[in-house]
Amino acid sequence: MARIVMKFGGTSMAGTERIRRVAGIVRRQQEAGHEVAVVVSAMAGETDRLVNFCREANALYDPAEYDVVVAAGEQVTSGLLALTLQAMGSKARSWLGWQLPIRTDKAHSKARIEGIDTDEILASMAAGEIAVIPGFQGMTEDRRITTLGRGGSDTSAVAVAAALGADRCDIYTDVDGVYTTDPRIVAKARKLKNVTYEEMLELASVGSKVLQTRCVALAMKENVRVQVLSSFIDENAPAADTLPGTMIVSDEELAKIQKDLDMESQLITGIAADKNEAKVILTAVPDRPGAVATIFTPLAAANINVDMIIQNVGREDTDTDVTFTVPQADLDRTLAVLEENRETIGYQKLTKDSKVSKISVVGVGMRSHAGVASTMFKTLADRGINIQAISTSEIKVSVLIDSDETELAVRLLHTAYGLDG
Amino acid sequence: MARIVMKFGGTSMAGTERIRRVAGIVRRQQEAGHEVAVVVSAMAGETDRLVNFCREANALYDPAEYDVVVAAGEQVTSGLLALTLQAMGSKARSWLGWQLPIRTDKAHSKARIEGIDTDEILASMAAGEIAVIPGFQGMTEDRRITTLGRGGSDTSAVAVAAALGADRCDIYTDVDGVYTTDPRIVAKARKLKNVTYEEMLELASVGSKVLQTRCVALAMKENVRVQVLSSFIDENAPAADTLPGTMIVSDEELAKIQKDLDMESQLITGIAADKNEAKVILTAVPDRPGAVATIFTPLAAANINVDMIIQNVGREDTDTDVTFTVPQADLDRTLAVLEENRETIGYQKLTKDSKVSKISVVGVGMRSHAGVASTMFKTLADRGINIQAISTSEIKVSVLIDSDETELAVRLLHTAYGLDG
Repeated sequence: MARIVMKFGGTSMAGTERIRRVAGIVRRQQEAGHEVAVVVSAMAGETDRLVNFCREANALYDPAEYDVVVAAGEQVTSGLLALTLQAMGSKARSWLGWQLPIRTDKAHSKARIEGIDTDEILASMAAGEIAVIPGFQGMTEDRRITTLGRGGSDTSAVAVAAALGADRCDIYTDVDGVYTTDPRIVAKARKLKNVTYEEMLELASVGSKVLQTRCVALAMKENVRVQVLSSFIDENAPAADTLPGTMIVSDEELAKIQKDLDMESQLITGIAADKNEAKVILTAVPDRPGAVATIFTPLAAANINVDMIIQNVGREDTDTDVTFTVPQADLDRTLAVLEENRETIGYQKLTKDSKVSKISVVGVGMRSHAGVASTMFKTLADRGINIQAISTSEIKVSVLIDSDETELAVRLLHTAYGLDG
Repeated sequence: MARIVMKFGGTSMAGTERIRRVAGIVRRQQEAGHEVAVVVSAMAGETDRLVNFCREANALYDPAEYDVVVAAGEQVTSGLLALTLQAMGSKARSWLGWQLPIRTDKAHSKARIEGIDTDEILASMAAGEIAVIPGFQGMTEDRRITTLGRGGSDTSAVAVAAALGADRCDIYTDVDGVYTTDPRIVAKARKLKNVTYEEMLELASVGSKVLQTRCVALAMKENVRVQVLSSFIDENAPAADTLPGTMIVSDEELAKIQKDLDMESQLITGIAADKNEAKVILTAVPDRPGAVATIFTPLAAANINVDMIIQNVGREDTDTDVTFTVPQADLDRTLAVLEENRETIGYQKLTKDSKVSKISVVGVGMRSHAGVASTMFKTLADRGINIQAISTSEIKVSVLIDSDETELAVRLLHTAYGLDG
């Protein structure tokens, strides 16, 4: 017997017919002898509908009241899933965020989970009752409803799994696992059996939309085994234990798995592309100590997330060019901040370019191998793809290229690193 | 300064534009110097949508989970009204059923309010914050959500008014008060300035749909002054103090008002018609002690609400005919129960008739006047309207007639009792 947390997203919960499919999948887990808790999202489209009501009511809405409104979506689906499970003959009950409670800080609309009380729910699960928990919601210490921000239900599921000491957190999504790259770009992309938390973090942060960065970071911190699975499996398929999803595990566990299977660790795990970056170039910034700080301090104050930063030698010895990237959604605000601080920074020219893509190769294996970056640069250069910027971490190399060349670059690299299935 | 509870129904809360109108009406009360709490229904149609989800999920739904689902509708509108009031510059916050809490028994889907904790909300109101409370919902002592049954938001409003010690509970509806009869039937119907709890109770129980019986009963028990007002008033109209709604008060208060105005008390306050009754006739029931009990004991066990009962002399000395009425919605179940118990009761023939109306004249004034019933019978007889059954209470006389004659009977009686405006 294991204790398993299952999580279903909005597409899986959109309407009573789909909720019945979800209930079938949940019941198979229970019939396999496991204790089961289920975390659910609101019906697809419902959160948007509620957010729009809030915007119409008050453009500068009070996040505490916004949370009261939008938390209703998950409340509805958790009650409906409990009802559906009961209709199929299972014992089940819903546990709302304030009932457990899921305790959070007071940062309404983007709260962080501080703890979950589990005595009652564990007793209920031990008595054979399936626990249904609305994702995305919690409660402050002064008993007001909070929400965790968009995509927060995955984070709820991992937090619940950690609090319950669950053996596994199965996240059912509209893809059936994590791939070496986007299968819509590379037909030969392979599904990964295992991936480490750190790899998943890098993949999430560079545009692989399977899981939110925040959810993976929490899983890594709490050491929760997370499995990504498709919710569109056959209703009569066996329980998830035997389903071929992708398991997200620690470095150590991956090393053990590879040793057991007598497998060599792969150099590169996956390749991701992110088209949502924009490039900003400041020309002829004075080359003196502290100059770069005058650029990035006001951007940080404006909560703009700067990603890659490259400082080039300028045309004269006394100045320098600085290039960096920001999310496209923040580009207008970035330009406004830079205009405001033009005199302090002292740049001559401000250039922007939204037609860029960031291509990243990710893998824990690259820690022990030299030459990953040079393979990347050579592969792209051979086909005349110009690299506009480079950034690296211990398990990732990213380059910025013209967005027209995104798909070509991903395919070339997928082959170059031996990932083609 | 007064403390006022205001209640708005689903039509008034249907969409952000209408919620803005409601917020305007609420703000005028506050600007008039009053402490204000507002009780709201879900958007029109939303509760039906949620109830349908529950039925689709589980035909024999668990009322505890049903309550989790349907309570979401009022949660959304309470958050939205708080946001809208804030947008207009008022301080406001929502207080959900579990936050106050509104404590109820465990009769999920038709719970009864047992008490409301008011320390926190009174402090908030005293600090100038408008309290917004979702109607229809509460919490059991083991912290599960309950709902009060359809139309429960009026009851919530009266309960909140009682708990807060409010000076008045203003119920905004789609009519602008209580009339001497349905203005769609009698053009000369007059709006009543005042009506007593007992009159309102009788009017509610005989088909005047302005307020639920349960809400009026609670107001009478707790001695809450309830005012019925139209929510379709001009946005720039003055605060409700000066609006011409109908005030529901105690006998003593009505007597005082009439004395102050040097008015004589009216014999009859209003005339109501109810087309939702059905008549059942059992022919040749054995005329022996306990016979009638064999009819009504199984009906009571099946939770069927029997209204008028008439026992006629049968065709022979040894048997009798029994006629009674039930709500049309319960007719099929009633017939099934009677068929099941045919042998025990021992009747010869079972006849039903759904084409009947109950016409009632109501007024506290009739206590001190003889002849109210005879005026009614004579008025109807003069126009050849046949009376099929009669029932009376201290302040009401009801007769059952052919439903084709409903409107004619109401108009004749409205004139006969001098109610025409």
